[in-house]
Amino acid sequence: MSNPSLLILAGDGIGPEVMVEVRKIIDWFGSKRDLTIDVTEDLVGGAAYDKHGTPLHDDTMAHAQEVDAVLLGAVGGPAYDDLDFSVKPERGLLRLRKEMDLFANLRPAQCFDALADFSSLKKELVAGLDIMIVRELTSGSYFGEPRGIFEENGERVGINTQRYTESEIDRVARSAFELARKRDNRLCSVEKANVMESGILWREVVTKIGAEDYPDVELSHMYADNCAMQLVRNPKQFDTIVTDNLFGDILSDCAAMLTGSLGMLPSASLGVPMENGKPKAMYEPVHGSAPDIAGQGKANPCACILSFAMALRYSYDEGAEADRLEAAVEKVLADGVRTADLMQAGAAKPANTSEMGDAVIAAL
Amino acid sequence: MSNPSLLILAGDGIGPEVMVEVRKIIDWFGSKRDLTIDVTEDLVGGAAYDKHGTPLHDDTMAHAQEVDAVLLGAVGGPAYDDLDFSVKPERGLLRLRKEMDLFANLRPAQCFDALADFSSLKKELVAGLDIMIVRELTSGSYFGEPRGIFEENGERVGINTQRYTESEIDRVARSAFELARKRDNRLCSVEKANVMESGILWREVVTKIGAEDYPDVELSHMYADNCAMQLVRNPKQFDTIVTDNLFGDILSDCAAMLTGSLGMLPSASLGVPMENGKPKAMYEPVHGSAPDIAGQGKANPCACILSFAMALRYSYDEGAEADRLEAAVEKVLADGVRTADLMQAGAAKPANTSEMGDAVIAAL
Ligand SMILES: CC(C)[C@H](C(=O)O)[C@@H](O)C(=O)O
Ligand SMILES: CC(C)[C@H](C(=O)O)[C@@H](O)C(=O)O
Repeated sequence: MSNPSLLILAGDGIGPEVMVEVRKIIDWFGSKRDLTIDVTEDLVGGAAYDKHGTPLHDDTMAHAQEVDAVLLGAVGGPAYDDLDFSVKPERGLLRLRKEMDLFANLRPAQCFDALADFSSLKKELVAGLDIMIVRELTSGSYFGEPRGIFEENGERVGINTQRYTESEIDRVARSAFELARKRDNRLCSVEKANVMESGILWREVVTKIGAEDYPDVELSHMYADNCAMQLVRNPKQFDTIVTDNLFGDILSDCAAMLTGSLGMLPSASLGVPMENGKPKAMYEPVHGSAPDIAGQGKANPCACILSFAMALRYSYDEGAEADRLEAAVEKVLADGVRTADLMQAGAAKPANTSEMGDAVIAAL
Repeated sequence: MSNPSLLILAGDGIGPEVMVEVRKIIDWFGSKRDLTIDVTEDLVGGAAYDKHGTPLHDDTMAHAQEVDAVLLGAVGGPAYDDLDFSVKPERGLLRLRKEMDLFANLRPAQCFDALADFSSLKKELVAGLDIMIVRELTSGSYFGEPRGIFEENGERVGINTQRYTESEIDRVARSAFELARKRDNRLCSVEKANVMESGILWREVVTKIGAEDYPDVELSHMYADNCAMQLVRNPKQFDTIVTDNLFGDILSDCAAMLTGSLGMLPSASLGVPMENGKPKAMYEPVHGSAPDIAGQGKANPCACILSFAMALRYSYDEGAEADRLEAAVEKVLADGVRTADLMQAGAAKPANTSEMGDAVIAAL
């Protein structure tokens, strides 16, 4: 049997820096745990645009379709802000999601014990917080047609289309129900069924699947605006949340920030099963390219390291090794190792990116 | 000159209860300040549905178009959850917004000093918080056509359309710039121009108006997902925010909850100027119909009272009286008067709805 494969797309800003640390960890698993992963690297986002004039070269796209998993750093930055919409760094990311059909975006919002003080929220509201948001990732308002800027009655109009078919709702809902079963068995489905027909269909399909195939999972429904409120009021009321692309974008970022652990949070984007039974998959940290600190050795590599842990779990069937890696990160935090983003201003000297990576390896 | 007019639509749940207190305050202004307002009352939402089979009767709609201002309580409740989409209580509200063309929804997110401890956020992050969110209210994904649930390739698809014309963006942006000028002179415009063409047009129009007509206002742009994060991380960075209907729905609810003063927050929805130079206008508390506490005398009337204060300011040109009413509410809070929603569990006996209204009058 050949080794499992990984395509690394480090991207822009701090992406390449945090990826250096992940490579060290991959090497560690190869030499110490006999888990050899065949790694290739390529460009995405602004970096790809600089070289190829496109944020994602066709060859890269084709290669992404073949590997067991893609690990992405981050895309974008002010150097690319004035680019045409069609070649913006983000388009590379969206093309990967769409063409790989990565419909289920798993975004854990977890508060690390050692970091609970970092939350804007009062500690008792976030200590132990562990939410899983499942965001639909390949449809909805960010992809629907018609879209564009058109002339109409002598002025321009900007149009995007929110659009969900029953089968698109069905598959992401099933992913969410399955995840809920492995967690606290509670799923909250979020839409605006009071004002949007797409939300009515969403609620209907989720309700039907729940009743027919997941009667054991406690299902609830919430409007997106109320969900934003409830996330702030009492985030621990949630276990698993499933929602559409746009609501999921906003609510998962809100939830991520609540934890106080933004620099720590990974994500997985999963598609349909491949021949080996594993889903097509892309993993990426929740944080962005952070151009303001790029190149300074300040970036926290943990979110990207934990994204690799998700790859171990969902793409390589190495759940025990994923647990090991996650435990190492938690231990490092408990030991007080901190990159600058995890410190109050004026605290002791922070660890740099590479010291944080080394600390995780030492804890493995 | 005839008296200014007000149409009260108390609606459902706690709406009628809090409106009783507002009526007392209106009477006070009539007898003590020689400010007589001609009040009429009518039904909206579930209450209107129960009587007329529609959440907003045509006569009510016609009357709303004629008065100087509408004051709405709240709509909806579990008794109406299973109604058909087209007659849901919310449709009454949406029809009022659309037919009165109330395009600018002003939602202050203000933290009352006496209530800062109630926020989920650490006190230093919210003490003194004073944001004004201007949400576009008559277009975007909640109104755009085509919309509905359609048959397509043997399955159903739910469709809504995000759609903004240049002139729709222009008018709400101007309202926001004007408000920013009366505040801290900073405006943050929020969209998803990185993935949505409607956001690109939004950003372009706002930028142009800013450069041409409001060069004195400091303008910034932010993606909606980042805005959700920043509201949690450091809400005091914001002064005035302008955004579309859907983003505004979610972000303003998030911001409202941050303040810890949810039961205190008013809103104004303003349209185009009428003959008297005042805009068409509807005022309503941010909180909902709270069916769980309806009829128990527990509701906090302050949000509705402060909505009436906004009516004094924007519809009746009585800015000084608005200040007076707002100061009275603040004094009552500072004096420690609290409805149940403003107390920690187990604290002293709360004031009921009517006692809170009386306290405000006593402080006037
Ligand atoms: C970069 C951008 C296109 C992307 C999105 O909006 O989906 C990002 O915000 C995310 O959440 O992954
Ligand atoms: C009740 C509902 C239709 C409404 C909306 O979504 O606009 C409400 O959430 C609001 O924010 O006023």
